[in-house]
Amino acid sequence: MLAHVFVLGIDPGLSRCGYCVLAADGRRNRAVALGVITTPVSAPVPDRLVELQREVRGLLEEFRPSVLAVERVLFQVNARTAMAVGQASGICMAEAAGRGCEVVQYSPNQVKQVVAGWGGADKQQVQRMVQSLLDLPAPPRPADAADAAALALCHLAMAPMQRAVAAASGSRP
Amino acid sequence: MLAHVFVLGIDPGLSRCGYCVLAADGRRNRAVALGVITTPVSAPVPDRLVELQREVRGLLEEFRPSVLAVERVLFQVNARTAMAVGQASGICMAEAAGRGCEVVQYSPNQVKQVVAGWGGADKQQVQRMVQSLLDLPAPPRPADAADAAALALCHLAMAPMQRAVAAASGSRP
Repeated sequence: MLAHVFVLGIDPGLSRCGYCVLAADGRRNRAVALGVITTPVSAPVPDRLVELQREVRGLLEEFRPSVLAVERVLFQVNARTAMAVGQASGICMAEAAGRGCEVVQYSPNQVKQVVAGWGGADKQQVQRMVQSLLDLPAPPRPADAADAAALALCHLAMAPMQRAVAAASGSRP
Repeated sequence: MLAHVFVLGIDPGLSRCGYCVLAADGRRNRAVALGVITTPVSAPVPDRLVELQREVRGLLEEFRPSVLAVERVLFQVNARTAMAVGQASGICMAEAAGRGCEVVQYSPNQVKQVVAGWGGADKQQVQRMVQSLLDLPAPPRPADAADAAALALCHLAMAPMQRAVAAASGSRP
């Protein structure tokens, strides 16, 4: 039996926060958890952040992933959404890093490039590629769950190259 | 001896996060902690968020404030700063609310209006008003610390009115 590594992908958000835990044994990647954490729009923001924090802690404690792959949001047209995404991503990163889980950020373009073959892929293309790569019976819905799975897949695809680059440049990864 | 209420003001940020703990007995407000939490710009963001989380937890556990007054950031010109502010504010709000500490947000304009008399007050005016209202030997520096004190003062000034409005409208605050 091969050893598994768990990678947690998170597409941060307050109304819908996508998550995916992949178990990787070096031969295939299997989704062991996939979904969205939702918090009620009608509740006060601090209460919603506490709820999100509790759910993320639950994932970290249940699966003990070695890596959190999280979306790097560089700019947003909607500043109100940007704040909520920032708040959610801050909580996820602090909870993971505080438990010794490595945190790696990937931009949406990097993720689409790696998972769907080009940086301009749309949500349906990402959902179909995630379905295919993880051998799922249907495309993951909502799109936030698929995006979280794509983040974890992106990390698993990139990690060997990052290690090789680090080794070639004489430093340890 | 009068009972004290502790109010924590936080001006969220990742490079410099202003904080101020005010002890209020209904007659005067006294600053019992005032300063900034800084994290090194050279460190990885997840590590900086963990450091900020640890410091904020320390303040909450040492002073057990009943209220966190935090800046509500509605929009930002610089999207990169907005992300860091969002990440920091999310962590502060979740840590406070998760401990049963009430979280109240005030916009920068509200704070300046209440503390300095008009919403367009500049940083120096806020620093001088905070010095005067808290009877400090010098204006608090850096400005982030003064802004945090102004947030806590704003809450203490607004809270009686909010209670009166809630009582007049027949609901409990």
